[in-house]
Amino acid sequence: MNIEAKHHIASRLDSQMKGLAATAWTARQKLALASRILYSEGHWRGLAGQITAREGSSTNMLTLGFGVGFDEAAASTLCLVDKDLLPLEGSSMPNPGVRFHSWVYAKRPDVAAIVHTHPPACAALSMIGEPLIVAHMDGTPLFDDCAYLAEWPGLPIGDDEGRIISEAMGDTHAILLAHHGLLTAGRTIEEATMLAVWMEHTAEMQLRARAIGEIRPIAPELAIESRDFLRKEKVLNLTFAYFGRRELRKDPGLLNEQPSAET
Amino acid sequence: MNIEAKHHIASRLDSQMKGLAATAWTARQKLALASRILYSEGHWRGLAGQITAREGSSTNMLTLGFGVGFDEAAASTLCLVDKDLLPLEGSSMPNPGVRFHSWVYAKRPDVAAIVHTHPPACAALSMIGEPLIVAHMDGTPLFDDCAYLAEWPGLPIGDDEGRIISEAMGDTHAILLAHHGLLTAGRTIEEATMLAVWMEHTAEMQLRARAIGEIRPIAPELAIESRDFLRKEKVLNLTFAYFGRRELRKDPGLLNEQPSAET
Amino acid sequence: MNIEAKHHIASRLDSQMKGLAATAWTARQKLALASRILYSEGHWRGLAGQITAREGSSTNMLTLGFGVGFDEAAASTLCLVDKDLLPLEGSSMPNPGVRFHSWVYAKRPDVAAIVHTHPPACAALSMIGEPLIVAHMDGTPLFDDCAYLAEWPGLPIGDDEGRIISEAMGDTHAILLAHHGLLTAGRTIEEATMLAVWMEHTAEMQLRARAIGEIRPIAPELAIESRDFLRKEKVLNLTFAYFGRRELRKDPGLLNEQPSAET
Amino acid sequence: MNIEAKHHIASRLDSQMKGLAATAWTARQKLALASRILYSEGHWRGLAGQITAREGSSTNMLTLGFGVGFDEAAASTLCLVDKDLLPLEGSSMPNPGVRFHSWVYAKRPDVAAIVHTHPPACAALSMIGEPLIVAHMDGTPLFDDCAYLAEWPGLPIGDDEGRIISEAMGDTHAILLAHHGLLTAGRTIEEATMLAVWMEHTAEMQLRARAIGEIRPIAPELAIESRDFLRKEKVLNLTFAYFGRRELRKDPGLLNEQPSAET
Repeated sequence: MNIEAKHHIASRLDSQMKGLAATAWTARQKLALASRILYSEGHWRGLAGQITAREGSSTNMLTLGFGVGFDEAAASTLCLVDKDLLPLEGSSMPNPGVRFHSWVYAKRPDVAAIVHTHPPACAALSMIGEPLIVAHMDGTPLFDDCAYLAEWPGLPIGDDEGRIISEAMGDTHAILLAHHGLLTAGRTIEEATMLAVWMEHTAEMQLRARAIGEIRPIAPELAIESRDFLRKEKVLNLTFAYFGRRELRKDPGLLNEQPSAET
Repeated sequence: MNIEAKHHIASRLDSQMKGLAATAWTARQKLALASRILYSEGHWRGLAGQITAREGSSTNMLTLGFGVGFDEAAASTLCLVDKDLLPLEGSSMPNPGVRFHSWVYAKRPDVAAIVHTHPPACAALSMIGEPLIVAHMDGTPLFDDCAYLAEWPGLPIGDDEGRIISEAMGDTHAILLAHHGLLTAGRTIEEATMLAVWMEHTAEMQLRARAIGEIRPIAPELAIESRDFLRKEKVLNLTFAYFGRRELRKDPGLLNEQPSAET
Repeated sequence: MNIEAKHHIASRLDSQMKGLAATAWTARQKLALASRILYSEGHWRGLAGQITAREGSSTNMLTLGFGVGFDEAAASTLCLVDKDLLPLEGSSMPNPGVRFHSWVYAKRPDVAAIVHTHPPACAALSMIGEPLIVAHMDGTPLFDDCAYLAEWPGLPIGDDEGRIISEAMGDTHAILLAHHGLLTAGRTIEEATMLAVWMEHTAEMQLRARAIGEIRPIAPELAIESRDFLRKEKVLNLTFAYFGRRELRKDPGLLNEQPSAET
Repeated sequence: MNIEAKHHIASRLDSQMKGLAATAWTARQKLALASRILYSEGHWRGLAGQITAREGSSTNMLTLGFGVGFDEAAASTLCLVDKDLLPLEGSSMPNPGVRFHSWVYAKRPDVAAIVHTHPPACAALSMIGEPLIVAHMDGTPLFDDCAYLAEWPGLPIGDDEGRIISEAMGDTHAILLAHHGLLTAGRTIEEATMLAVWMEHTAEMQLRARAIGEIRPIAPELAIESRDFLRKEKVLNLTFAYFGRRELRKDPGLLNEQPSAET
């Protein structure tokens, strides 16, 4: 394995990627796109599952109103709440399940967005006491960066759950929650979203592979190299932009913001 | 686990949820919406599967005509029949499979609506002699409230099946029927529908989890707390309303009622 | 189990069902609808899979042209061929895979239509030497009426395959073909189509159930009662009509026939 | 088994198939169609997965731009690059993952097109150290023509991966890449595409069958006969054309080429 030649290619790639245009989406637009992406990627389970974005460096959160599904998210109808879920604009009430997000924001200044969902493969995996196994290139973004909470603390509408989950995460950006689902915490909305998408793909592969055989591990140094490439900001944004365009082809109106609603 | 602090938050939630608007759908409209929801959620198996709603406190039932699929249901084309399936309006004949519903209504005055379907995960689970296992938050609405009928009484078009099924249910609001499917009995159309949706999700998770490991149980007190929250009338209605809006975006006309058809 | 009371209900049903209107679709229209139904029900695998209908009591067959997929079938573009696959109208060439159908027609005067497909669950099941197990109400139409060919005779474009398959079928109306797929032979197009749909459902349930447990058998007398009800001509036609309407909502034009093309 | 009679039928088929019209799609149009087909057949995993076609007998490659998904491919927006991925037209940057394709083209003059994807069944299979098993007629196009690379060489953006993968392929036209996915190399775009579609179908059947039993092998001489029939150029093209028409019904505009972009 000629790692040096590869690093040379990777740096050339870095410099080429500088030329890739960044998208000009606002936080509200990205959050609406992320909700639609999560819906299309099967993270939907009725009203279970929430997404939030931190407002600047505060502990205020931008999120969907209670009763609004991922497929209904639009930049114009998000609500801004403080860490106790009290509305800062209008009178919208958020899903009470976002309470524990504020614990993660408080503990992790690097985190700008959180996705919490109950997608089917992670949900099934969460029932048998087995952590996520990263043994495929597409799962490497989560390599050595996905914690496991082995005990379900119950309906996450209180404060204990926030403390328990944020402690179990440590410094990771993802966690599998027993009897419950997944949580990803990203330095950007793009990262939180893509980690959630990749985590469900990884759980799906794990369920199918384990049903017929034993999973063979991958070499840590290769997994880390792959992770660090796929989680480069430019690559994450390029990937999110692609998923986002798929949603815009279905409903371009989701980007419209109310005149006064810009975050 | 600070249960008291959580109860405090839950009561505040209760008072906040009072502000959530109730939907103004009629029974016919809700039944049409419920049929479409069941179709979209994969409860469809050709003409197998029925839904009924009790007319007031009588044993008359509102249902779909024989040969009409869940995806064709509309408020304007439902039929009202008595407990012997004789039509009370027009001459529509219902699916003969709804005969055993009338046994459940007769025995259970609290029940206002019944869903009976053969969705794929419940159908597969029903073949191996294993009851439904609730070990995920999304299944908790069924915790300690789902019975099991271990012997198939045969094609359910007679009276024996009604007696057998209604006895096996006892006081529960759901039952897994061996070699057959599921039945949910709700105090409202919303509850019967959502229990059916959640029951299939739960069976789906059980099949996938059990294929690779042993399911770890959840703490009963946490399961009960979660169940009682998710089955609050306001939460059920909010959830049903969300699922209903998805159907209305596909076919708003399903709500139209014939002028004289109001129940 | 009060079988007599049930028989009484069943006869009343029979007499009620006499009132159900028959559909007025021609053989060509039914074959086009059946093709579309098979496509929607997941029987599609590229160009693998064929459907034929016998022309009257001859051994001529109505079928799709070679290279035409189930989703492209239309009453106007079917082709009529003799038992050696020579075209009787125009110059269309059928899929060479329909050659063995003519062996079934020759051997079985009761058969008016044949479906042969490789749907995913039957295909997977066909690889492990295990026959179809009927242990769910929805599979009962196939109870004691589904044969098994344990050895694959190879690409079915020759005459040997026709002889081998038709012999293995005996008097049944369905067969699981090892390493290959399913074949159903109906007294009507409706029956052949619905048996194929139900057979794939049954294989799907079998795969999922067997992955986590042992399948418990159902009582033969109940399975037979259910089979005989679900395969009544009126019930089959009602079911086919429902599936057919789903296709017509997507593409009403599939029924158009060429003026001179009526069979 | 009367192999001679079958050969006679097969030759008559050959002569009949000569009459089947070839499609008039250009290489760019075929590559756009192939991308859309791969998307529809579930080969999509975000931006993972690439397709290339060799330009004439050079080592230049026609491919999609970096960040463009299979579902966005159009004849007008493909990019032409040399073996070092430097653009030969405009300034488009391809996905860095196509670097190892050029190794395959260099080593295999017979190869005109390469598909590399991470579809879910192949991805799951790739994690457990088990090669692809061909035991169903629909998998026979890959019989004795699918290699296996048991060790993942890491993120495939360097040159070592190209050397390793092309050596592991030998003379085959397909390979299962451990912890990674599939690669197919065809003598035409049609062949590379259909091999990829069939390979994922085969892995899907293998996962489902193996979860409940042991796969029984098929007779090599029958598998080879079936493979050679299904991979005849006329049959491959007929099959690709059918899959292509499905995409054109969704988006006929994908065929449009820029006036100056003809390869």
